[in-house]
Amino acid sequence: MTLDDLPLRLGVCYYPEQWPRHLWRDDARRMRELGLRVVRIAEFAWALMEPEAGRFDWAWLDEAIDTLAAEGLQVVLGTPTAAPPHWLVDAHPDVLPIDAQGQPKAFGSRRHCDFSSPAFLAASDRIVGAMAQRYGRHPAVVAWQLDNEYGCHDTVASYSPAALAAFRHWLAARHGSIDALNAAWGTVFWSAQWARFDDIGFPVGQPGGALPAHALDWRRFCADAVLAYHRRQRALLAVHAPGVPVLHNFMGLFTDVDAHALGADCDISSWDSYPLGHTDIAPGLDEAERLRWATTGAPDITGFHHDLYRGCGSGRWWVMEQQAGPVNWAAWNALPAPGMVRAWTWEAFAHGAELVSYFRWRQLPYAQEQMHSGLHRPDLERDTGGDEAAAVAAELAALPAQLARLGLDAQALAPRPAPVALVLDFPSLWMAAVQPHGADMPGLGVAMRYHAALRGLGLDVDILPPHAPLQGYALVVVPSLLHAPPAFTAQALALPGVVVLGPRAGSKTADMAIPVPLPPGDLAAGLPMRVHGVESLRPGRQLPLQQPDGQALAEGAHGLQWRDLLAPADGVQVQATYADGWPAWLQHGRWHAHAGVVDAGTLGQWLAAAAAQAGLVTTPLPDGLRLRRRGALQFAIHRGEQPVAVPAPPGAQFLLGGPTLARAGVAAWWVPEGPAA
Amino acid sequence: MTLDDLPLRLGVCYYPEQWPRHLWRDDARRMRELGLRVVRIAEFAWALMEPEAGRFDWAWLDEAIDTLAAEGLQVVLGTPTAAPPHWLVDAHPDVLPIDAQGQPKAFGSRRHCDFSSPAFLAASDRIVGAMAQRYGRHPAVVAWQLDNEYGCHDTVASYSPAALAAFRHWLAARHGSIDALNAAWGTVFWSAQWARFDDIGFPVGQPGGALPAHALDWRRFCADAVLAYHRRQRALLAVHAPGVPVLHNFMGLFTDVDAHALGADCDISSWDSYPLGHTDIAPGLDEAERLRWATTGAPDITGFHHDLYRGCGSGRWWVMEQQAGPVNWAAWNALPAPGMVRAWTWEAFAHGAELVSYFRWRQLPYAQEQMHSGLHRPDLERDTGGDEAAAVAAELAALPAQLARLGLDAQALAPRPAPVALVLDFPSLWMAAVQPHGADMPGLGVAMRYHAALRGLGLDVDILPPHAPLQGYALVVVPSLLHAPPAFTAQALALPGVVVLGPRAGSKTADMAIPVPLPPGDLAAGLPMRVHGVESLRPGRQLPLQQPDGQALAEGAHGLQWRDLLAPADGVQVQATYADGWPAWLQHGRWHAHAGVVDAGTLGQWLAAAAAQAGLVTTPLPDGLRLRRRGALQFAIHRGEQPVAVPAPPGAQFLLGGPTLARAGVAAWWVPEGPAA
Amino acid sequence: MTLDDLPLRLGVCYYPEQWPRHLWRDDARRMRELGLRVVRIAEFAWALMEPEAGRFDWAWLDEAIDTLAAEGLQVVLGTPTAAPPHWLVDAHPDVLPIDAQGQPKAFGSRRHCDFSSPAFLAASDRIVGAMAQRYGRHPAVVAWQLDNEYGCHDTVASYSPAALAAFRHWLAARHGSIDALNAAWGTVFWSAQWARFDDIGFPVGQPGGALPAHALDWRRFCADAVLAYHRRQRALLAVHAPGVPVLHNFMGLFTDVDAHALGADCDISSWDSYPLGHTDIAPGLDEAERLRWATTGAPDITGFHHDLYRGCGSGRWWVMEQQAGPVNWAAWNALPAPGMVRAWTWEAFAHGAELVSYFRWRQLPYAQEQMHSGLHRPDLERDTGGDEAAAVAAELAALPAQLARLGLDAQALAPRPAPVALVLDFPSLWMAAVQPHGADMPGLGVAMRYHAALRGLGLDVDILPPHAPLQGYALVVVPSLLHAPPAFTAQALALPGVVVLGPRAGSKTADMAIPVPLPPGDLAAGLPMRVHGVESLRPGRQLPLQQPDGQALAEGAHGLQWRDLLAPADGVQVQATYADGWPAWLQHGRWHAHAGVVDAGTLGQWLAAAAAQAGLVTTPLPDGLRLRRRGALQFAIHRGEQPVAVPAPPGAQFLLGGPTLARAGVAAWWVPEGPAA
Repeated sequence: MTLDDLPLRLGVCYYPEQWPRHLWRDDARRMRELGLRVVRIAEFAWALMEPEAGRFDWAWLDEAIDTLAAEGLQVVLGTPTAAPPHWLVDAHPDVLPIDAQGQPKAFGSRRHCDFSSPAFLAASDRIVGAMAQRYGRHPAVVAWQLDNEYGCHDTVASYSPAALAAFRHWLAARHGSIDALNAAWGTVFWSAQWARFDDIGFPVGQPGGALPAHALDWRRFCADAVLAYHRRQRALLAVHAPGVPVLHNFMGLFTDVDAHALGADCDISSWDSYPLGHTDIAPGLDEAERLRWATTGAPDITGFHHDLYRGCGSGRWWVMEQQAGPVNWAAWNALPAPGMVRAWTWEAFAHGAELVSYFRWRQLPYAQEQMHSGLHRPDLERDTGGDEAAAVAAELAALPAQLARLGLDAQALAPRPAPVALVLDFPSLWMAAVQPHGADMPGLGVAMRYHAALRGLGLDVDILPPHAPLQGYALVVVPSLLHAPPAFTAQALALPGVVVLGPRAGSKTADMAIPVPLPPGDLAAGLPMRVHGVESLRPGRQLPLQQPDGQALAEGAHGLQWRDLLAPADGVQVQATYADGWPAWLQHGRWHAHAGVVDAGTLGQWLAAAAAQAGLVTTPLPDGLRLRRRGALQFAIHRGEQPVAVPAPPGAQFLLGGPTLARAGVAAWWVPEGPAA
Repeated sequence: MTLDDLPLRLGVCYYPEQWPRHLWRDDARRMRELGLRVVRIAEFAWALMEPEAGRFDWAWLDEAIDTLAAEGLQVVLGTPTAAPPHWLVDAHPDVLPIDAQGQPKAFGSRRHCDFSSPAFLAASDRIVGAMAQRYGRHPAVVAWQLDNEYGCHDTVASYSPAALAAFRHWLAARHGSIDALNAAWGTVFWSAQWARFDDIGFPVGQPGGALPAHALDWRRFCADAVLAYHRRQRALLAVHAPGVPVLHNFMGLFTDVDAHALGADCDISSWDSYPLGHTDIAPGLDEAERLRWATTGAPDITGFHHDLYRGCGSGRWWVMEQQAGPVNWAAWNALPAPGMVRAWTWEAFAHGAELVSYFRWRQLPYAQEQMHSGLHRPDLERDTGGDEAAAVAAELAALPAQLARLGLDAQALAPRPAPVALVLDFPSLWMAAVQPHGADMPGLGVAMRYHAALRGLGLDVDILPPHAPLQGYALVVVPSLLHAPPAFTAQALALPGVVVLGPRAGSKTADMAIPVPLPPGDLAAGLPMRVHGVESLRPGRQLPLQQPDGQALAEGAHGLQWRDLLAPADGVQVQATYADGWPAWLQHGRWHAHAGVVDAGTLGQWLAAAAAQAGLVTTPLPDGLRLRRRGALQFAIHRGEQPVAVPAPPGAQFLLGGPTLARAGVAAWWVPEGPAA
Repeated sequence: MTLDDLPLRLGVCYYPEQWPRHLWRDDARRMRELGLRVVRIAEFAWALMEPEAGRFDWAWLDEAIDTLAAEGLQVVLGTPTAAPPHWLVDAHPDVLPIDAQGQPKAFGSRRHCDFSSPAFLAASDRIVGAMAQRYGRHPAVVAWQLDNEYGCHDTVASYSPAALAAFRHWLAARHGSIDALNAAWGTVFWSAQWARFDDIGFPVGQPGGALPAHALDWRRFCADAVLAYHRRQRALLAVHAPGVPVLHNFMGLFTDVDAHALGADCDISSWDSYPLGHTDIAPGLDEAERLRWATTGAPDITGFHHDLYRGCGSGRWWVMEQQAGPVNWAAWNALPAPGMVRAWTWEAFAHGAELVSYFRWRQLPYAQEQMHSGLHRPDLERDTGGDEAAAVAAELAALPAQLARLGLDAQALAPRPAPVALVLDFPSLWMAAVQPHGADMPGLGVAMRYHAALRGLGLDVDILPPHAPLQGYALVVVPSLLHAPPAFTAQALALPGVVVLGPRAGSKTADMAIPVPLPPGDLAAGLPMRVHGVESLRPGRQLPLQQPDGQALAEGAHGLQWRDLLAPADGVQVQATYADGWPAWLQHGRWHAHAGVVDAGTLGQWLAAAAAQAGLVTTPLPDGLRLRRRGALQFAIHRGEQPVAVPAPPGAQFLLGGPTLARAGVAAWWVPEGPAA
């Protein structure tokens, strides 16, 4: 077994066009020496590949690829469509997206392209086709990244004439007839009946707010337009680069596209992981948490996205961009605590990544991202992130021998399904965004809250869409599934495992109405109850929770943000209530329902009870410690300020670290048999 | 005496067009059985009444009205002009209002109509005329609601060409000549002299802010445009529905229209009461108060509006929409505390309402208000609000016999004038909004502060415009009258009662200049003083108050937000001062003046002194308790968490409740003789 | 020696056109009697001077000037170009500036003029030329103010076609070729290469933000357009008013124009000082400070601007507008504490002002500034600010005799250079604004923090641009010089004095890139080090500071907001570090470098050490006390609530006040020999 056999690789994002050509060869050599295996290039270089419409210049890119290949590096080629050149905008101003106030966005950065613009689509086909034709069979090119971060800078929607025409067409296809649309949207409400699809506008500027189904369909259309665009690129690659995997790099904390749908059209799923930037902007964190985890990242933001994007598509999963030092785009941009770049890398591997690719090889001293660090400083010297990447590379190099000593082969690192599935659904998140009802009630935040509580119990989690098969999971947690597709409900009813419904489960039809019979709709077949109403709770409103007999729960147990008013059927067990008697936690056999958001400690206890019922062993973890199993290895990552002991069995064989971890510490030990600790 | 004789009725808002026709008959029966007497319908159904321009379909509405009438229900018909159909916008895009940035608002909700658009006015005339012609003499139709919530969603102003032309016309009519306008506005200040009315634009977009008189005239014009529109509808009703009262449903916390002027053109005044939503958004409440009263509504928001809108027009006054459960439009939407729907209903009756009409019969499971609850849930079952309405209906049914036992007839419930008048003036509120001088100094908030202080003393209050006759009032409180019309000043000087001027009284001329001689202008004839200047105080600046001799006032007594620098004439008594010596409270015979906003406790003491001088008995009330007398009955409503004793005399005869009230409790007892307790 | 010999005069801003003509003579007489010597007039009266295009009416202005002159008053004439009349906008709508969203700003206030509009420039030439021709040689006109507060109300930038054309022209002139621009801006980054200057747009609306060099060049262009406009007016004055000084009145807390460049084209520098308004809006103050200094102004805001604008231009320096009571434009507008108007006046004189001119003679009861107080109330009576001005006038009148008694003449009041120079650079502030990296890291705030720390040590400070000669300064402090021009670096290396570099020094090239070799670029020749990276710290992140050996610094010493990661060369002394070992304070001979923002106490200690090295005596001042020396006199101003002793030597000769100062107290004592106390 050699390093090549390991399904763990390091990579880097590199922009040869931004550096003098004389540096390329040296850069490639140093990449190899650092232990990097994969290099992503080219995704913003359209203007250099096609300096004028239809005139291509491949010489520089040929040389760049060959220079990398000469050092044995594998290349991921990015299609450059996120940054159309000026000649395209000059010739076709309608390439520019229009904002919600009717102003065109401007050339001079990136993502200034309207997914519905015929001129953009034609130009995109030309450059993608030409690029694929030239490099589709290049032996060094091991994968293609299609475009870059769809929707970044709030660009999924364009309020252009082209988008409007496409939206009307999409509506006609979805609803069939205008009468069906009027019925689905409920236009009778305020005399909003439309007579023709061609009269329908954007869901912005209505004095009383757009019809929620109008707003939801717009979000669906926008996400579908991105999906159609992605498929268009993929089709060209299929012709010219048969058998070479394609991927897209998704973003954190971003829900405007349906990553499950897009992931199904990728061969590899990947995302761009910036733990400190995400901690700065994540909804649901309070100021104390942002401060506390400013230099390590909050313990579960990164793991949440690892688990989410691993579940998008085929199961092959990469971190395409890994933060390697301070970023430039958060409101405040902290220096990572020493060791965190290494720890983030191992955390990604622990969650199943095949590749962790750092962003970027070298900090660029000019342009928009000049304050974004990389593995090297602008003066070519290695930065601390580079040192930590080198440390990981050295650890990887030692791994084959370590495994061999234990009698293991590379198969020992094959990811396995987790025991817990968390069901996440992008359309449900859009529904929550269209009508949050409580101003601080984002769907994603609730899902992250459940995920963090499970992770705090030492449980591994797979995040999956409602249409994914869930049979093998001992515990299925459904935190924010506003619309439960019938197929999901049918599957859930047939599951052998324990099911936990979070607030708002089944609260909307596909057309964003309240179902009648009342929520949770058909899910009531699993947990017989009806939701008689809901209440959103302003910040500071804390509803004490108690046992059904009025005895206290744990000190300080309380609900916040939201509660459903649950009316259980006879025979359903009330496990906890609010002080006014409304149930807070119901159980019916293997089904649980939580009425609302509750404090983290209480949520942990309720989920621990469900896990116990599912036969899972839970390990309440000390502050900042997280576990993740990959194959035969159990990983532990620690972000807390105080050193902690890892829950390894006596005599555990450590491949990384040891029984005690300081901040930024990483441990991995062999789990010879049976289930994860 | 029967229930029919009582001037207390329950009603409901109902939308037959939103429900299958087969439900109508059953709905009507259940309304009757619940004890409802009045049903408002049709105010958003333009597209069904007139599916195409000029083609009317009355069949459904005929059937709906007849179905209700068949159960003995009385109908309030709403003209549907708040929601113009798409065919009108198609044919005349200028129907859509233009926002301050020049963008047209969009079709797809409501209030997408420009009060100055000729096409809208013509279409409005047609539908209102046709509807009035068809139902004007229908025996079941007992009143007409003109339009719905004028100005909702910030729609009083439209920055359209039609509005600009109308504004110029309005200015010419108001000022007579451009020279007069230049003089009135003070255009000499920054070389802003206009040469022609047709050169004048909107008061938006000026780098240094519009001339305040320009901004004020624009607000006047906008309010006048609504008034003219209202009169246009009323004129059609007068032709086709002679003798049938018309009304409009005003909103809470809304001052863009002059409700006194509009109310003078109604036969009944009404408003839409949403205590929890209003508590969520009301200016002037701090976060602790919003939390504390989240499920009951703040104690005085509702009463303030009851007293305000009862004073608009003829004296006949309804609550057209009464919150019956969580609303959907606040930032956070709480569940009312149990009993509060009943308590709000009785509170409205106590303040003099003839009708309390719940919004809405049944929660609609789709469209913008799908999260707005009603008396029934979307699955047709009765919601808790419906249960509480039924409880009120039962109490009403018992009332005739109770009254008879006491030897009283329905006349015992005839509202009487309160002993205290609070003078409120919409143009003064507009002046305060045009130049608040302190960022948290809304005119309405100051008025509500005075009202709450009076109510906390157990005093009943009538809120009246400055032109209302005030002779009978023992105490007249003038909290925020920036411009005192000469007629008001003359009346005030001739009053026998005690007059209390709040901050900013008389501080502006009709053209929004500082009067010279200085404020309070002519009001100085009542309280001889001049205001030498003003100071606005940022949040947290608390100016200690003291007695004129420097002795302490009550612990913590302080001014906040604002103070006028009052220079009293000789002979005026200084009752309290700020620490730097400027007077805080002046008295001159029966006239009082307060220099600024002061803490609630101090304000209560100062108003109690004025009330005592006026011969009124005050009853400082425990937290959350409020009293209101109606005719021979004294009502008490309690919102506090702790039970309280009501200030009923020994041996009082209770018609509702008893001597102790828990949260949401209601009591009513007979006051056999003399003044209210 | 008489009062006329003193270089200390009082003045006032007066608007005769806003008052009945019959008041003018009396006003002039009372000005003289109050002790005022200089009157600024006419800067908003364009419409009266030129009622129609090309038709002039000088009669009223002739009379106004002559009336003032008849009382011996000197006149400063303002060109009225900040308020173009309506006839100009009517004829040439392109005079109106366009906002960043593409909407024209509106007529009806002031500054509604686009500095690039040919029509505006032509009309400006005509009125300025005509006015200069008429009054350029009038004996009473002692100075000209060109325009008024360039850029007020955010009007430096206009997004108009004319501005765009001028910007492209400016770019061509700056960069020479489009290739040079592409290289300078780094357009290769996201395929943003432009082919022609005429394709370049405004740096707004780019989804990912404009290129920083694009944004920076736009700011430079806008500032240059103001400068060119200023020079255009000055050229006309040079023709018609030879030898009469021109000035402009700069604003506080405003950096959109380069006051150093503009000041070089003035004969006198001046600014408009509103201590309370500035305290309300100044960045960098926390809420407790705003409350604490609400009625006195924060201790160093005013002094900072005095020191800044004294350093713009020739050294002659006025306060053109001095707050004399509450202003109207802050969010909250406080009444100055008694005595503060006098104290501000003396503070300005202490800092070297030749003239302090109050705004305004009388509060105008109408128009936008009706709530802005003046020396008199609208009813013609003197306001408290007037009383305090009169007190200053009396003190000035007594001064000649006092000086004579000490054997001094007027020369004793000649300002001298301070011992400390603080280097401030407007382009560096623009760079900080274009990419702040930390959301609360304004360049100006950091400079003010250093200035305040120096002032708290009793040090006098001159604020100077990097190109000013610095040879004579014992201590040169460079708090926020992102780009160090080569000439500055060369000068600094040759200085004999101590140099202190603050955070971000030398961090950018002229084209806003990171220099390579790394920051501080060439400044490393003075302090050998490189900045390996930076970190911005969210509010609440406090990094403990310690001595290099790990011992504690003063209790609570900490860094905040920002730190550079300083890597010192061998031989550089580390004076303090962060807890993770990165240096916080480096010293190398006479050079110091601070890595980041630190708490005020620590900054004071570090600067005190540098001052001691420079041979300066520091005097840590009690809270609220500030010192300033002018010539032979040492002034002290006190804003604190508690009385304090001034650091006067025993037996000091006091010309104002005495050894103890209460709030608003002013003292001045004679310093017979040697350096300032």
